[in-house]
Amino acid sequence: MKKIKVHSPGTVANLVCGFDILGMALSEPFDIMELSLIDEPKVIIHNKDNFNLPVEAEKNVAGVVLLSVIERLENKVGFEIAIEKHIKPGSGIGSSAASAAGAAVAANHLLGKIFSNDEVVQFAMNGEKLASGVKHADNIAPCILGGVSLIRSIHPLDIIPLSSPDLFVTIVHPQIEVRTSDARQILRQQVLLKDAIRQWGNIAGLVTGFLKNDVELIGRSLEDVIIEPVRSILIPGFDEVKEKCKEAGALGGGISGSGPSMFMLSKDKNTAIAVESVMKEVYTRIGIDFNTYVTTINKNGVEVVV
Amino acid sequence: MKKIKVHSPGTVANLVCGFDILGMALSEPFDIMELSLIDEPKVIIHNKDNFNLPVEAEKNVAGVVLLSVIERLENKVGFEIAIEKHIKPGSGIGSSAASAAGAAVAANHLLGKIFSNDEVVQFAMNGEKLASGVKHADNIAPCILGGVSLIRSIHPLDIIPLSSPDLFVTIVHPQIEVRTSDARQILRQQVLLKDAIRQWGNIAGLVTGFLKNDVELIGRSLEDVIIEPVRSILIPGFDEVKEKCKEAGALGGGISGSGPSMFMLSKDKNTAIAVESVMKEVYTRIGIDFNTYVTTINKNGVEVVV
Repeated sequence: MKKIKVHSPGTVANLVCGFDILGMALSEPFDIMELSLIDEPKVIIHNKDNFNLPVEAEKNVAGVVLLSVIERLENKVGFEIAIEKHIKPGSGIGSSAASAAGAAVAANHLLGKIFSNDEVVQFAMNGEKLASGVKHADNIAPCILGGVSLIRSIHPLDIIPLSSPDLFVTIVHPQIEVRTSDARQILRQQVLLKDAIRQWGNIAGLVTGFLKNDVELIGRSLEDVIIEPVRSILIPGFDEVKEKCKEAGALGGGISGSGPSMFMLSKDKNTAIAVESVMKEVYTRIGIDFNTYVTTINKNGVEVVV
Repeated sequence: MKKIKVHSPGTVANLVCGFDILGMALSEPFDIMELSLIDEPKVIIHNKDNFNLPVEAEKNVAGVVLLSVIERLENKVGFEIAIEKHIKPGSGIGSSAASAAGAAVAANHLLGKIFSNDEVVQFAMNGEKLASGVKHADNIAPCILGGVSLIRSIHPLDIIPLSSPDLFVTIVHPQIEVRTSDARQILRQQVLLKDAIRQWGNIAGLVTGFLKNDVELIGRSLEDVIIEPVRSILIPGFDEVKEKCKEAGALGGGISGSGPSMFMLSKDKNTAIAVESVMKEVYTRIGIDFNTYVTTINKNGVEVVV
């Protein structure tokens, strides 16, 4: 088989208190990518959406991932890729990770699965480097593996899949621009030890909640005393949306990745829909365009569909 | 029943990367306490060891715990307690917590278990306040509940018991004095965000290792980039002991609580004994008196024996 089609899902990085170490895959939205092997050692990119992303391989997230695969295989292969993105770039739900992870997984499938999961993650991280300047894996890992991923360490890479209850996820993407690099720059380089202690109590609680299927503990642990107080300033309506979503029954939530999207977790679909109504109401009133999604945790990650 | 006897175990707080939020109970050593109800609203203390701890109730860790119980019951009861401590005060393996937790659990039993676990922890925390100036629960909780405890939050109190593999624990107590209050004061009030991120990756990994019975993950996660580099300076031989214990097969370990004791976790008893030999060798050579214990994780906590 010289051609493959994959669905590459959106992801929520950080999960409120797990800055840089936790991420979760979404059932929707997802990008659709078709990859073929070609003989020449180059990458040909066709964009099948309206996002006007670069078609030069070295400037395209999927492109640099495929170039790194080609380099690893000593220029013995090349790729042609058609990309139909549905995850809006800059939305904060892992658009670049979906491009990078989708390309890496598809390439590995086409090549007969010669690379391990960790190697596929490493290839995909080259795409994140291009997108944000940092080789992080908190979107890449859940995008590839599905479910919730713990990235204990980047050097050396140590990714641990976590089980989780079947929660519903509501996402709102207010259509404002928050650049990942800006969202990183406003963070303080030093934090108070007492805040760090509170944060790691919550991280331990969140991980325990996922592993023990304790949704109330997940809700109590979704608190971020370090990153959210700084970054939420960049997102109009943040405090109101969060408060009202919890009143509507959400377990909790916060900024997705570096924003501007927000996510909320709920125990059941009706609550997740009620949460969506709250989000719509607030951003309609504020007068900011937005998209919403009501979805679930995607347990499979990048999926081969043809 | 107007008289009760309990065994109250030693505990290892922090567990390397979980400063102030994790603790683990030990099968040995343990204190032995006998508690009786009396009619007068006061606390009579008999010390049956050679530690010369105060017998005035308001200066004694078990005493203040019992006074707080008496106050809660509006002076309708009193207690007489005989304490035979085996956990040396100042050793860093939860000596004050054993006094406090043992007294609180024993009192609750004598009174017909009228208080919840959380209330018993709250009573016992009064003893920790006397001992260290801080109402912390990372020794108290595992001492009462057994096993490994996560204290997600102190205000409000949120204690989550964690399952764990049946690991062996080797302890060495070098007989030097490290006061808990000193060990707190030398900590920096601010930490680098990048160190905090590394720490919470390890905490999440450690908790996941306990819950998934993944001993290798436990080993990889037993790394502390924030507290240990500062506190270990107070413990002669620390770096050498740690390095050689890991060479001898220990999964990992570090300072127990605020020190000076160190603990090491091992998969099997033979390794735990080899680790003990390493500890003995180093402190014999350095010329510091020491005690060692080879023990297991205590799954029961304070135990009623009569």
